[in-house]
Amino acid sequence: MNSENLADRIDHALELYLPGCEAPALTNAMRYCLFAGGKRLRPRLLIASCRMFGGDEQAAMPFACAIEMIHTYSLIHDDLPAMDNDDFRRGKPSCHKQFGEALAILAGDALLNRSFEVMAEACAASEENAVRRAKAMACVGKAAGAYGMVGGQALDINNAKLDESGLARIYDLKTGGLIRAAIVAGYLIATVASDMDIKDTITQVATKLGYAFQIRDDYLDVIKTTKELGKPQGSDAKNSKTTYVTLFGLWQTKQTVNELVADAIRLLNIGAIGFNAQAAPLMDIASEFIISD
Amino acid sequence: MNSENLADRIDHALELYLPGCEAPALTNAMRYCLFAGGKRLRPRLLIASCRMFGGDEQAAMPFACAIEMIHTYSLIHDDLPAMDNDDFRRGKPSCHKQFGEALAILAGDALLNRSFEVMAEACAASEENAVRRAKAMACVGKAAGAYGMVGGQALDINNAKLDESGLARIYDLKTGGLIRAAIVAGYLIATVASDMDIKDTITQVATKLGYAFQIRDDYLDVIKTTKELGKPQGSDAKNSKTTYVTLFGLWQTKQTVNELVADAIRLLNIGAIGFNAQAAPLMDIASEFIISD
Repeated sequence: MNSENLADRIDHALELYLPGCEAPALTNAMRYCLFAGGKRLRPRLLIASCRMFGGDEQAAMPFACAIEMIHTYSLIHDDLPAMDNDDFRRGKPSCHKQFGEALAILAGDALLNRSFEVMAEACAASEENAVRRAKAMACVGKAAGAYGMVGGQALDINNAKLDESGLARIYDLKTGGLIRAAIVAGYLIATVASDMDIKDTITQVATKLGYAFQIRDDYLDVIKTTKELGKPQGSDAKNSKTTYVTLFGLWQTKQTVNELVADAIRLLNIGAIGFNAQAAPLMDIASEFIISD
Repeated sequence: MNSENLADRIDHALELYLPGCEAPALTNAMRYCLFAGGKRLRPRLLIASCRMFGGDEQAAMPFACAIEMIHTYSLIHDDLPAMDNDDFRRGKPSCHKQFGEALAILAGDALLNRSFEVMAEACAASEENAVRRAKAMACVGKAAGAYGMVGGQALDINNAKLDESGLARIYDLKTGGLIRAAIVAGYLIATVASDMDIKDTITQVATKLGYAFQIRDDYLDVIKTTKELGKPQGSDAKNSKTTYVTLFGLWQTKQTVNELVADAIRLLNIGAIGFNAQAAPLMDIASEFIISD
């Protein structure tokens, strides 16, 4: 399974899952953001995890697309003037700069709605798998809402003074949760018999990768130029936010990211819990997180 | 089944479905809006419909609560400065006036997320009923998103010049769809064997009630005082919006509402399609729409 091809297949599926609606401006705003060059990290993780446990890509695809829609909606609402007030995203004007605030709010709402509609349809499509798919959907829902990402965003408002544990908690809710949900949902969709040991292990792997991803983002926010990031460099500093870098510095941040990724790969490598070669695609994606410069 | 008691039972269930999250301000904002004295119209319709088809209240309750959360989120986002910019809702400061715009955006997002999470859990809780419940969830999702309410809201931006058919289309998407989904979802949850004739009839009933509800709202916006409405009187006129009243006047609006309700009740009364006495609770709710003054 080639990751580049997988991202292409995800893009193709996203096209199919987002037909135009009666309000052309809304369709345009949704598509502008959904096809803005995202790396499709969360859907790739979900599919790699599902395949690792013997599930097939086709069954995982609606959930993979749904989680990318949720990620995209969260970026649109995060960029709004009342939130982070970011004018750029992925090198282009952010949604509200391009379409106005009202449509940006609605485009986010619509992507969130559509995400769950797509998952619900996938549940309804299979008598045999409906319950497992519904569990995956509930897992994604919990990670996305007040008890996950949105809760983390709310805690993140005025986060100026945080210690490490406060920061780690916000990161886990705001970013880690959805990455973890991608990996756990892949497991839930694939596995007929539930195995608590395996679920614990995959949850640990997912938690480490989620944390690594967010603090790597803090690192990149400082080290990369605006052009490379596609958004203003140093936007965290502009907003006086506590980040892993402001707490521990660049060198330690890089070390921690690479240790978390190494830990995750080590867990996946333990043959005794039966991942073996099936884990390769997930390990490949994990390796993308390593900071080598 | 007494409607007042039913509204109380819905309130009680909503409490249980919305435990506090780690961000107290977010919990407060969500609860402030969800328990602001709404009449619980959509959940009552859903439960009355489910019971009419032999389903039980307990099975319908998660979906009833979910649709009320969706309704509430849509009001929060509708009131935002970038949207309708309404400072009051149900006689109290609107969410963003009370908690700030950022929290209002997040409270809406969180209610929408939670709505789907609650429905997903209800799907996962019953092997036997998972598919029918997932269909009900997909029905609600479609009515709430780009192909329903959010699409209608997007069309409604700058709606100043509309004819009757344009207005009817927006009303059907923006308001009618969720009311129809409440009634159709109740049917889907309750009915094991699908019967296209019955589904067609109940969809017609639901469509008439949805349209009646929205143009009754236009009527009330003109006729009631600000205190009675709980929001500024004449806010449609303030925003120069086309409404059923601006197109046809007050007298015709009242006639149309009452005819739509009478039609809906007549359809429910046709013994041949087997609703009979079971339809009484739904007819009672429909009767609430009649304009008698």
